[in-house]
Amino acid sequence: MFDNRMNEYTSFQNLKISTCFSGIKKSPNNEHDLLLIEFEKASSVAGVFTKSLTSSASVNQCRDCLNSEEQSTVRAIVVNSGNANAFTGEKGEETVLEIRKFLSYKLNCNINQVYTASTGVIGEQLDSSKIINHIKNLSPYDPPNWSEAAKAIKTTDTFPKIAKRTCKIDNAKIEIVGIAKGSGMIAPNMATMLGFLFTNANLPSNVLQKILEIENEKTFNSITVDSDTSTSDTVLLSATRTANHVPINKYSDKRLKDFKKNISSLMLELAQLIVIDGEGASKFITIKLEGASSTKSAKKIAFSVANSPLVKTAIAGEDANWGRIIMAIGKSGEKANRDKIKIYIGNELVTSNGMVSKNYSEQKATEHLKQKEIILTIDVGVGKSKATVYTCDLTHKYIEINADYRS
Amino acid sequence: MFDNRMNEYTSFQNLKISTCFSGIKKSPNNEHDLLLIEFEKASSVAGVFTKSLTSSASVNQCRDCLNSEEQSTVRAIVVNSGNANAFTGEKGEETVLEIRKFLSYKLNCNINQVYTASTGVIGEQLDSSKIINHIKNLSPYDPPNWSEAAKAIKTTDTFPKIAKRTCKIDNAKIEIVGIAKGSGMIAPNMATMLGFLFTNANLPSNVLQKILEIENEKTFNSITVDSDTSTSDTVLLSATRTANHVPINKYSDKRLKDFKKNISSLMLELAQLIVIDGEGASKFITIKLEGASSTKSAKKIAFSVANSPLVKTAIAGEDANWGRIIMAIGKSGEKANRDKIKIYIGNELVTSNGMVSKNYSEQKATEHLKQKEIILTIDVGVGKSKATVYTCDLTHKYIEINADYRS
Repeated sequence: MFDNRMNEYTSFQNLKISTCFSGIKKSPNNEHDLLLIEFEKASSVAGVFTKSLTSSASVNQCRDCLNSEEQSTVRAIVVNSGNANAFTGEKGEETVLEIRKFLSYKLNCNINQVYTASTGVIGEQLDSSKIINHIKNLSPYDPPNWSEAAKAIKTTDTFPKIAKRTCKIDNAKIEIVGIAKGSGMIAPNMATMLGFLFTNANLPSNVLQKILEIENEKTFNSITVDSDTSTSDTVLLSATRTANHVPINKYSDKRLKDFKKNISSLMLELAQLIVIDGEGASKFITIKLEGASSTKSAKKIAFSVANSPLVKTAIAGEDANWGRIIMAIGKSGEKANRDKIKIYIGNELVTSNGMVSKNYSEQKATEHLKQKEIILTIDVGVGKSKATVYTCDLTHKYIEINADYRS
Repeated sequence: MFDNRMNEYTSFQNLKISTCFSGIKKSPNNEHDLLLIEFEKASSVAGVFTKSLTSSASVNQCRDCLNSEEQSTVRAIVVNSGNANAFTGEKGEETVLEIRKFLSYKLNCNINQVYTASTGVIGEQLDSSKIINHIKNLSPYDPPNWSEAAKAIKTTDTFPKIAKRTCKIDNAKIEIVGIAKGSGMIAPNMATMLGFLFTNANLPSNVLQKILEIENEKTFNSITVDSDTSTSDTVLLSATRTANHVPINKYSDKRLKDFKKNISSLMLELAQLIVIDGEGASKFITIKLEGASSTKSAKKIAFSVANSPLVKTAIAGEDANWGRIIMAIGKSGEKANRDKIKIYIGNELVTSNGMVSKNYSEQKATEHLKQKEIILTIDVGVGKSKATVYTCDLTHKYIEINADYRS
C-alpha cells in the first residue's frame, strides 16, 4: 500500500539537517537520537499540539513561541528521542529554556525562533548539557538528508517515516517534505506522535497555521492506535518562502488549491504510516462513517468503533462479529437511527432495516477480514456528515510489548 | 476479598423463582438459560438501563413499562441468556411483546407488569415459542433458590453473582438480595451487565427509582472492564412491600438511612464481582480520584485512567510506569493542575510538585503492583470533588478470549 522508499533528498535551499548520537536514548548501536534543523533565514512556521492538560515543557514553550508574534518565524528546530522531558516540573521547563538560549546565541536569533520537541521516557530529567555539547560539534548533511532526520526522531518505531510531494503555486515548483514518528502510545515507555513538515512555498505563518489546523483534523487527528494520547504530540509546519511566486496571504486564495491537496495527502500518508507501525498491528483498518448529524458526531462515532477493544480484537481474529460494531456505535452517545444503520464489511452489506441484511454472507465478510487492509463503511442514517478514521487491530503483540516488559 | 458463598435462600414471601434449560443457550451440559420471577402481588419496581442508542427490544419495552404509570408495578420478570435479541428489528420487538402477552394472560395481570431481559448473541432472532413453551411447564423452587436464579442468567461468567443484606426500617427486618451477570463486554459473543435486586421493604416505585439511580452511579456505573457498553444493560429493583413497617414515601426520609447504606453496599459488591470476573482479569484495580473540580469531572478522569490500555497493560506487567497515569489524566480533557497532581501506587507517593517525588521508591510501588488488589489514589489538585471507579488489568487472556475465537 505504502511505498516508503524514496529519494532522501530535496532541492531545499536555506535549510540544514544535522543528526548525531547524544546518548540520551539507550541504544546499543548508537542510533542517532538528536536532530537539528537550521533555517538560514527566518522562515514562517505553524504548529498544532497535544490537547493533553499535562503537556510537556517543549509543547508549552512551542505554543508560547507561536503566540509571541502575529507572524511567528523559526530559525531552528531541535528534536531529541529517548527522553520526553514530560512531567519534569520547573526544572524541565528550564532545560528547554537553556537549549533555546544556547541556540539563539549560536544562530544570533531571537529565542522565540527556536523550537524544540522531545519524545521518550516520561518523568526523567533531560540533561541540557548533553544536547548543547553535541550541537556544538554537529556538521550538517550536504545535501540535507531527510532519511537520517526521520531516523533520529524514532523511538520504538520499526521504520523511519518520510513523505514527499511536489506541486505548483502559480508557475513555481513547490516541494513539501515531512517526517514523522510514532507507533502507538508507546512501549516500553510512553511515546508520542511527532511530525515535522517543510516547504519552500512563499506563505506567511497565519496561512500555514490555518492549512495545518484544517488538514490535521483529517489526518493526524483521525488516527488512533490504542486511544491513548501523549503529553508531547507536536506537528510543526515551516516554510522557507524561497519559491519563486508572489506571497499568498489568504487561506482562501484559489492559487493554494494544488498546495492544499498535496499537503493533505502528504499528512495522510504520514498518519497512515504511524498506524501501520502501530504496536502489534497486524491489520490496517479504515472506518468510513457516513450519514451522521455533524462532522464532529461522525468522527466521535468512528473513533468509538476504532477504539473499541472488542471491535479491534474481532478484526485481529478475522471474526465478522458485527454485533460489536453495533455496540460501539451505540455507546458513542451520538445520534444514530437504529433501523437505518447500514454496515459494510468490505463491500458486503451486513445490516439494514435494524437487523441483519437478507443477503448477508458471513463467508464474504470473513474473506474481507482476512486481508491486511480492512474497510468498514458505516451509515448511521440520520444526516449527511462524514468522517474517516484509521486504526489497527489489537493483538497479543500489543500486550506483549506493553505488559510483558519490566522497567 | 469477596465471599460469594452464601445462603441460597431468603425468607421472601410472595415471590417465586423458576429456572430451566430452554435450549436458547448453546450449552453442552444443558445449563439453565431461562429465569422466571413471579410476584404473587403487584410489587413496586424501578429500573436503570444502558445509555446505548442501539438498545435492545427488552430494554426499550422495560423503559416503556416504567413510564406507563406514575407508580409502576411488576408481576413477572423473565430473563434469558444465550440470545440478546438486540438489533433484531421490528420482529425482535414483537418477540418481546409475545412473551409479555403470554405472561400477562397466565398471571392475569396488565402487560405493563411484565418485564424482560435478554443477554447473549446479537443480531439473531429470539424464538418466543421456546420461552413460552418452557414457561408453561416451569415449577418454582420451594423455597426460592437465588443461587439457581444467578446461574440461569450467566453467559460467559465464570461464577454466579449473588449478594445479600439484612437491615431495618423502623423495627421491621428488611431483606435485600441481588443477582447479577457480566464479565466484560463479552466473548465469544458480546454480552451484557444485568442486575436484579429484590427487597421486602414497603417502598413505592418512585422512592425505589431514586435510590436505584443514585446508588447506580456509585456502583454499576463506576465499573469498567474494557470501556465497551452493551446494548442490553439492565438493573431492576423490585419491592414486595411485605415488610411490617408503614410505607415510606419520600426519598429523603431518615428512616431509609440503614436501607440505603445496605443496598449501596450490596450493589457495590455485585459490581465488584463483575470486575473480578472481567475477561482475562488478573488484578482488581480501584482508582480513587480526588481533588477534582466536580464529581462528573472526577469520574471522567478516573475512567480515563481505568480505560487506558497502557495503564491496564502496565498493571498486568506489574510495571510502575506512572508516566502512563499522567498521560491518562492529561488525555481526559478535564481540569488538572500539573504541578499539584499527586499519584499514589498503594501507599507510595509517586509524584508531587509536577515531578517524581523525592522519596519515591519504585521498589515499593512495584511490590504493591504484585498484589492481586491494586489501589491507585490520584489527586488532581484543582478542587474537592471525588469519585472511585473499579476496573481490571488487560492481559493476554483478554485477547485470547476475544480474538482467538472464530464464530
